[in-house]
Amino acid sequence: MDKEKVDKYNRLLIEGNLFFYGATKGSFIFPPHGYALWKNIQNTLDKKFAARGVQNVLLPTLIPLDLLEKEKEHVTGFSPECFYVEKIGNKKLETPLVLRPTSEVMFYDWYRQILHSYRQLPLLYNQWCSVFRAEKNTTPFFRNTEFLWQEGHTLHASIQEARQFTLNVLSDYQDYAENILCLGIIVGQKTAGEKFAGALETYTVECLLPDGQCLQLATSHYFGDNFCRLMEVKFQNKDNQMQHPFSTSWGTSTRAIGALVKAHADQWGLILPFEIAPVQIAFILIGESPELINYYQEIYGLLSRHYRCQLYNKNKQVNANVLQADQEGCPFKMIIGKQELEHQEITLIRRDDVERKITIKLEENELEKKYITAAEKYCKELSEISRENKKEFEKVKIVNSFRQGQRTGKIFGIISREAQELQKNLYQKSVEFRNKHIFSVANFTELEKKIKDGSKGLFLVPFCNNLDCELKIKEKAPSYSIRCIAGEKKVDTSHKCLFCQSAAQNRVYLGRSY
Amino acid sequence: MDKEKVDKYNRLLIEGNLFFYGATKGSFIFPPHGYALWKNIQNTLDKKFAARGVQNVLLPTLIPLDLLEKEKEHVTGFSPECFYVEKIGNKKLETPLVLRPTSEVMFYDWYRQILHSYRQLPLLYNQWCSVFRAEKNTTPFFRNTEFLWQEGHTLHASIQEARQFTLNVLSDYQDYAENILCLGIIVGQKTAGEKFAGALETYTVECLLPDGQCLQLATSHYFGDNFCRLMEVKFQNKDNQMQHPFSTSWGTSTRAIGALVKAHADQWGLILPFEIAPVQIAFILIGESPELINYYQEIYGLLSRHYRCQLYNKNKQVNANVLQADQEGCPFKMIIGKQELEHQEITLIRRDDVERKITIKLEENELEKKYITAAEKYCKELSEISRENKKEFEKVKIVNSFRQGQRTGKIFGIISREAQELQKNLYQKSVEFRNKHIFSVANFTELEKKIKDGSKGLFLVPFCNNLDCELKIKEKAPSYSIRCIAGEKKVDTSHKCLFCQSAAQNRVYLGRSY
Ligand SMILES: [Zn+2]
Ligand SMILES: [Zn+2]
Repeated sequence: MDKEKVDKYNRLLIEGNLFFYGATKGSFIFPPHGYALWKNIQNTLDKKFAARGVQNVLLPTLIPLDLLEKEKEHVTGFSPECFYVEKIGNKKLETPLVLRPTSEVMFYDWYRQILHSYRQLPLLYNQWCSVFRAEKNTTPFFRNTEFLWQEGHTLHASIQEARQFTLNVLSDYQDYAENILCLGIIVGQKTAGEKFAGALETYTVECLLPDGQCLQLATSHYFGDNFCRLMEVKFQNKDNQMQHPFSTSWGTSTRAIGALVKAHADQWGLILPFEIAPVQIAFILIGESPELINYYQEIYGLLSRHYRCQLYNKNKQVNANVLQADQEGCPFKMIIGKQELEHQEITLIRRDDVERKITIKLEENELEKKYITAAEKYCKELSEISRENKKEFEKVKIVNSFRQGQRTGKIFGIISREAQELQKNLYQKSVEFRNKHIFSVANFTELEKKIKDGSKGLFLVPFCNNLDCELKIKEKAPSYSIRCIAGEKKVDTSHKCLFCQSAAQNRVYLGRSY
Repeated sequence: MDKEKVDKYNRLLIEGNLFFYGATKGSFIFPPHGYALWKNIQNTLDKKFAARGVQNVLLPTLIPLDLLEKEKEHVTGFSPECFYVEKIGNKKLETPLVLRPTSEVMFYDWYRQILHSYRQLPLLYNQWCSVFRAEKNTTPFFRNTEFLWQEGHTLHASIQEARQFTLNVLSDYQDYAENILCLGIIVGQKTAGEKFAGALETYTVECLLPDGQCLQLATSHYFGDNFCRLMEVKFQNKDNQMQHPFSTSWGTSTRAIGALVKAHADQWGLILPFEIAPVQIAFILIGESPELINYYQEIYGLLSRHYRCQLYNKNKQVNANVLQADQEGCPFKMIIGKQELEHQEITLIRRDDVERKITIKLEENELEKKYITAAEKYCKELSEISRENKKEFEKVKIVNSFRQGQRTGKIFGIISREAQELQKNLYQKSVEFRNKHIFSVANFTELEKKIKDGSKGLFLVPFCNNLDCELKIKEKAPSYSIRCIAGEKKVDTSHKCLFCQSAAQNRVYLGRSY
């Protein structure tokens, strides 16, 4: 990335209050707005996971080095990047500790101790935590020495159930990326050279960002019984035999925030999807008369029960408050001034279309007045029944709640529709960008030309599915790698592998990674 | 603590699914039930903090050692206990990093960079995170090498506001300890020898546990501008002058879980307060006929919208399921069997009084039938109005929801009353224990005798408020320390300090700490 783009991205993050530089290189501070965004993302995913029966747990940050080394094949990938604790106070440790780069070994070491019978399966545990990786070049949210993620580790009694679970979580991630983050993505299986060490199958959700680089947003792995064998996790099955369970793991991280920012920002700042925005409705007051404040408080009271609302008034000038709400990516601004008060209306502005003013009128019409009359009558009738029962009915309360309900209904109807439109709009733009930047490339000369021309995007190329061939790609197309296999039903088998000219098994996406 | 008691406590934790041993000494794993309990505690406190305007943030785990050393006076207390990271991969670090024992310096280093104007004040930030302390002897939840806590750090423009905030948070902690954890506590100010290094005032919430030891549950500190001076945090005040803000900090930790377990367990296992119990209602099914399952599902559907419910059926035998629910401390068991189905009722059992069966009858009475007739009439009227409006009203839906509402009302009324009774009962028992174990002691001979006799509890003794005198207590009464100053309005000034015989300024609680 060139310097100007880096600066622009970092400015978006800082002005949007999503990020601040930590005291150690490559670490970051989550200010309130950024942390709230992450919490909303967490809640959204937690609901999906809970619907699959997943439960949250928490394991320690520190791993004994000798335990980590059990997972040899895996550790080769991580060991040079680990943070080591070799001293506590003045005492040198006999066994050094490592700050978790991931928690596989910790989970399996625990599972080994608690799993006994098939009755306990499946074990569907997940943890939200921070992990540590040494990185030479760091970029906020894309590459950090300490970042936050979620890692699920599940055990199953059967192969079929474990494989299905891997795919179920993948579809949760796809839904999250498309409908919550509003990103145009590609989803598919990783090739042998790109799958997770120890996994039999790795599936990925990838997103092409406006700078032409491809971000791995989430992965889901099926391990067979590999890890359970290695870590000696066993259970007694229905036939009273001891066997290893089959396992999966899956994760996504704070990278999602980087993707959101790059994909959806405009010249004024962030644009956050409605569902996860820390502030869904930013109130902007023009004027400060007591009547105006009263009117604002009534509307705020109605809406804040259902939406995350905040008054933006920390700056002296209205314009500066508007700017701040825009920089922080609030999906809606609700403007309340003299005119709105006079006409008993409110003005709504959608973040992705700041020119359009949406007016919501709140006065009761004739029909609503009739409903209120019916409600009053109903209250009277209830009172008569309750006289036998010596119970008091608060007529005023019921009718008022009806009135408020009407007002709320009018505002909610419009906000809910416009929120969907905003999300759809963000998603459509991202999908269009993706579609414009996927290039079918049939031979190597064409690929070389595209790269030379500086075409940014994903190249869809025929591939032989051969690991040896894959390892040579780095020579042939440096800084490119296979992102995933295209999930096409039919593949033109007359095509030749772009790299070795043998018969192609399928097509793969080739892209530059973060 | 003697071995038998340790074993009993650890068994309660493991069988109650609150705790499992981590792979590194003194660390722990939170299984689903334990983690959910901690999350509920978090939510409860977060609501209180949010009502005070506090926002959550997150800072990095690693602190550069040179930054930590800035806070010299403070670090003296921590430095020998720190976890050091001196190597990443194969690379030796020039400046070692430390795993946060607390995050003061990180907060102030950040505040120094973001604070400019009085318009930003107060800054009311809090973080939930894990912290690291070297410990020779570890006890689950009471003393761990890695544990979870919350640390709030706030900046204010005036002394008065900062001091008031310290006390406001203290009252939140008091409310949390008494009404959420249901613990009989003592609340007061720490003496000069016991207050937090750098603080001008430290307030504490302490709880005497059944083993006679006194646990510090939460503390709240007022710093004046000490920390801001040290860390060079400044702002431009209303008069355009640069000045240091005044600060506070406050925290509570996973120790609360240890306190809960010790204070409220019985011979069958944990007893958790209703408000924070991970499972508030444990469903126990006796039988498996389709009608029974249907009936259970209807009740479960009604209740699970408002309470945290779970079916206990992982064990083959009903008794084992009952035992598990009891071990995990579920406040209520809801028994549904053939008899309940026949009589359209349910049986509720309160965890703190397992002998008493509470029967809830669900059939409609004559009065309820009348209400339903009125609701049906109201629906008809609405339909007539809506004919003009071409809107469909679903009569069946409204009447059914009324019917369900009646059923729900009956169950909710009883559960809500019984839940309050349970909490009150736990609290009362804890208060009684505390009151029985506070001993007024007027002279040193009496104190020595009490200690010799093995009286466990808190000793309320006259004290001179002199730091020099306080430092000598450890010689005179080893393993005892001043927990806090008794908040008595009037002190008998004829009393002499128990340790130095000079005039007493007030009385203090002397106790053994964890
Ligand atoms: Zn090939
Ligand atoms: Zn004295």
